[in-house]
Order: sequence, then structure tokens, then C-alpha cells
Amino acid sequence: MKWAMIATWRMAVEGITEAGKDLSEGGFAGDAIEKAIKTVEDFPFYKSVGYGGLPNENCEVELDAAYMDGDTLSIGAVGGIRDFSNPISIARKLSYERFNCFLVGAGAESYAHKEGFERKNMLTDRAKLHYKKKYKETVEKGLSPYNGHDTVGMIAVDKNGKMVAGTSTSGLFMKRRGRVGDSPISGSGFYCDSEVGGASATGLGEDLMKGCISYEIVRLMKEGMHPQEACDKAVQELNDKLARKRGKAGDLSLVALNNKGEWGVATNIEGFSFSVVSETEEPTVYVCKKQENGKTSYEKASEEWLQAYLNRIHEPITFD
Amino acid sequence: MKWAMIATWRMAVEGITEAGKDLSEGGFAGDAIEKAIKTVEDFPFYKSVGYGGLPNENCEVELDAAYMDGDTLSIGAVGGIRDFSNPISIARKLSYERFNCFLVGAGAESYAHKEGFERKNMLTDRAKLHYKKKYKETVEKGLSPYNGHDTVGMIAVDKNGKMVAGTSTSGLFMKRRGRVGDSPISGSGFYCDSEVGGASATGLGEDLMKGCISYEIVRLMKEGMHPQEACDKAVQELNDKLARKRGKAGDLSLVALNNKGEWGVATNIEGFSFSVVSETEEPTVYVCKKQENGKTSYEKASEEWLQAYLNRIHEPITFD
Repeated sequence: MKWAMIATWRMAVEGITEAGKDLSEGGFAGDAIEKAIKTVEDFPFYKSVGYGGLPNENCEVELDAAYMDGDTLSIGAVGGIRDFSNPISIARKLSYERFNCFLVGAGAESYAHKEGFERKNMLTDRAKLHYKKKYKETVEKGLSPYNGHDTVGMIAVDKNGKMVAGTSTSGLFMKRRGRVGDSPISGSGFYCDSEVGGASATGLGEDLMKGCISYEIVRLMKEGMHPQEACDKAVQELNDKLARKRGKAGDLSLVALNNKGEWGVATNIEGFSFSVVSETEEPTVYVCKKQENGKTSYEKASEEWLQAYLNRIHEPITFD
Repeated sequence: MKWAMIATWRMAVEGITEAGKDLSEGGFAGDAIEKAIKTVEDFPFYKSVGYGGLPNENCEVELDAAYMDGDTLSIGAVGGIRDFSNPISIARKLSYERFNCFLVGAGAESYAHKEGFERKNMLTDRAKLHYKKKYKETVEKGLSPYNGHDTVGMIAVDKNGKMVAGTSTSGLFMKRRGRVGDSPISGSGFYCDSEVGGASATGLGEDLMKGCISYEIVRLMKEGMHPQEACDKAVQELNDKLARKRGKAGDLSLVALNNKGEWGVATNIEGFSFSVVSETEEPTVYVCKKQENGKTSYEKASEEWLQAYLNRIHEPITFD
């Protein structure tokens, strides 16, 4: 079988590069997902996942993560967990349980502590500066602070055809304490079935949930659609439905992979980036463009784009 | 339009009786759902919802609830909230927000407190006795304590064709602290679209989530299926898939209603009961039987069954 991984955003590329090496040597999709997501969680300059993730309205970093095994449909998830290094690993551990697989808040922390997961203060000085700046620029002026969203979501298929999906995020920047988005929600933030494929989402969790869109994409692939066709159809339909019923749709960006290693992506925003690696493709970052017909096209990120990205995530945070 | 309500379990019948009167007078489906679920939450002898609900492994009552407006697809939900009288009302309030619609744990409590919702110690003496008995009979003997599940889930359609779904539960008896089941999860515990219909689930949340089954039933109804056909198909398929992939399926029980007031139900267990009221049907309790072909049949609960139910929920709790 052809192994492959696809993940939301540029930030996933280092992780899938490492994990892709393991898959090329026959590694298990679940190990690849955990390793790749841990790499994103551990990197302090990715400000929406793990260490360095942006805090909630109380300046606390609350993290959501999920893991789904496409062979057994087992799911593990955590919501609103604080001060553990690697939410994805806690989610994976929970996926081996038959009961109590989705834990939130203090209960999730208590479980993680008992299971010996590493505690870590996940709030960085840089994240605090982001918080202060955002607070000054929005809350103090009576403006809505909500616009950030960059969940990492991934799907992998290994040489044995096993598939796993995973997500990890610090969620909506400036969210209310205890807010849970789509990332730990089965069918919304992720879904995976090794007999078909998997999908994962990033965007406005509150709107992604209204369409169970990851489940819907996997379902469309099951009907025989290519992942690209399934993503385009599901994103367009949900976007149009939300626009019709609510006047507007929040950001919806999806990646999908089937068990043949074919992938697809769709978004209703400009500039959504994603990362791919497979048996036949070196680790690559793509950038999306929404076409006039509502479908999504993409091209390889240019050297300029990649450099500008690196500059942006490292640039000093300044405000008056 | 024909108004109607369907709800999981016998315990919903008093609530839908009251709410049905409002619907018959032109009331809004959302008010009917909130009123009916509050009635269940407030009644101390229903041991899986609201006041008197069974506690988690730490003897704390943690509640999950959700509300979904089928016109706008707006969702509000709470998970693992403690010591508020009516989680359904908090969920409904959250459904009017564009951001931060699903709150868990301490964050949900903080929101509810600020919004002025009534605080109440939700742990009754009777629930404590249930806890002690279960603890003695299972945990102390090294046995698994997990078997209870009776979420109340409802869907209503009003005279204007508006549809709303709602759920409320204390979740799996003896669950881990922070465990969230399917009830507040869009697509799993509930889904509702006024253009089609709605569905709601009760059973093992961990397994219901593996199939996004409420979303799937609404989708099947959208394809033209009668609610009964949609429920039968979705429950059978998920049950068979879980059996095939995992060796066994947890309890799966679903109710559904379309926007014409037609309803359906399916279950993979014996004895699942549900409650219906509509323009053409007095409040009625039905009891299900799983047929050999995997489909679900049901009949009106007999006077004997109804009396035995009342005796059971009030009977003294005894143990050595």
C-alpha cells in the first residue's frame, strides 16, 4: 500500500517530515500521527497548538486534542486541558479505553496526572504578549477579539493500509474559559475509517460543528468520490447553507486522505496552507486559493511565501 | 403544519405532555423543548438527568446538555457542569452566541453563574445511596461499574414548521470526572435541520460518537427516507460495523422526527422506551422490541409496564 500524510497548515511540515520517514520504513499510522502532532505541540512559535498556544480570555492556555483509529473507530479526546505538554498523547491513551474516552477540564487533568503525562506551564512570554496586544486592540476598544484559528489536524495511512486521524489546538484565541471547539468532536474536527479514508478540519469550530463536516467528507469518499471532490462538495454545501440560514459562514478549511493515499483539500478562505508527504511526494507545503466557482485550487508554496512565514512567526510583537 | 414531539424514554412523558399543550396553541418548538427537558431535569426520581442524576466516580453530579435550532443550525452545549438546576436552559442561552457555544467544566459554571442561572446542589440523598450500592457491588469487587445510560433527548416541530432538538443527562453512572458523552456533541447526541428533521440518541456515548449517528439519520431523511426507515438503517449499520470492527457494540437507541411530524425509532437493545405527542396523538409511551431482522418494532406501554416503572423509580434502595 502507498503510505501518505496530509495536515492542515504550514506548521505541520516539520512534524510530517519526521513522521513520514517512519511511515516509509513501515511504521504505524498512529505513531506517525502522534509524533507529527507532538512536534507541532512542542514548537513554541506555533501560536495555536500546544506550547506557546494562545490563551483564553483569562490568559490561560486551554487545549483540545483528539485521536481516532480508523481500524477500530476508537476515539480519544481531551477538551479544555491545561498545563500538559502533549494533549495528543493523552487523547491517544484515552482511545484505548472503552468508556470515558472524552475527558474535559479538571477531570482530564486529573486523568493525565495519574497516567504520568508530563506537566508543563504551556503559557509562554510570547503568548502573553500576543494576549496583551489583542486585548488592547479589541476588548479595550469594545471590539470582538475573535478571528484566530489554526488547529493542526492530520490524517495518515501506513503501508498496511491502517489509517489514523489526530487534532490538537489551543482553540479560538481569547475564547471563553471552558470553550471547546470542533477539534475534539468526532465527525466535526476529525473522522477516520480505514475502509475509506479520513478528514480533519480547521476554522470556526462553532460553524464546523453545524455540518459534521469531517464525517460528511468521509461519507462522500465512501460513496466513491475522490478526496478532492468530497472536500469541495462538503465545504461548498456547508458554506452555502450557513450563508443562506445565518447570513454568513465562519472559516471552514478541510483536508482529506483516502486509503489509496489520494488526498484533497477545500476552504472558504484565502491563503489556507497545508502540508503533504507520501511515498511519491517529498514533504511539501501548498497554499490554497478559492476559485470563483467555489472550488479550491492550490499551488506549492513559493520560497518567498515560506520565508515570509518564518519571518512572521518569529517577528517581535510590538504595540503602543 | 402538524406539530409533534418525540423523546427518548418513559421519563419524558410528563414534560412533553406539558410542552405539547403549548405547541397545540402555536408555541415555539424551542420553548417546548426547554420546558419539557426542564420538567425531566427537575424531577428527583429520574436518576440520569438533572436533579437526582447519578454521580461520577467521585460522587459528583456532572451534567451534559445541548440545544440545536433547526432553522439557523445554532447549537449551544455544556459538558461536565455541576450544580446548576437546568443545563438545558444554559445550553439554549449559549445557542444564541456566534462564538463560545460549547462550554465545559469550570468555564461553563462561571458562564452560567454570570448569566444568573439558578445554582442548586444536584446530588440527592437517593443518588448517594445509588452510588454507595453500585460502589459496593462493582468497584469493591473489582467489576466494571458501567452500564447505566438514560439520556433524555427530544425533537419538536411546531405549527410553523420550526424544529428544535435538545438533550440533557448526568451521563454514564460512575463515569470518570470530566467524561463527556454524546449528548452535547453535534451529530452524535443530536442533530436538527428544519428543512428535514431531527434525531437524538441515548446509549453508550463513546460508541454513538463513532458513527455520528444523529447526523446520519437526518441525512438519510433528507435523501427521502421516512424517520423509521432512517433510524432502522443507521442503527443497524452502526451496530453491525461496531460488531465487525470491535467485537461488540454498546447500546444505541435513537428517536427521529421529520418536519411533517412523522417519527421513527430504532435500538439495538430490548426494552428501550420512548414518548410521543402530536396534533393527532395523545401523549403516549411506547416500548421497543428488537426484531430478528435487526429492525425495531414497538408497542404502547401497557398499564402494567407503566405501573412497574413507577414502582421501580420510587422503590427503596437496599443493600447489605
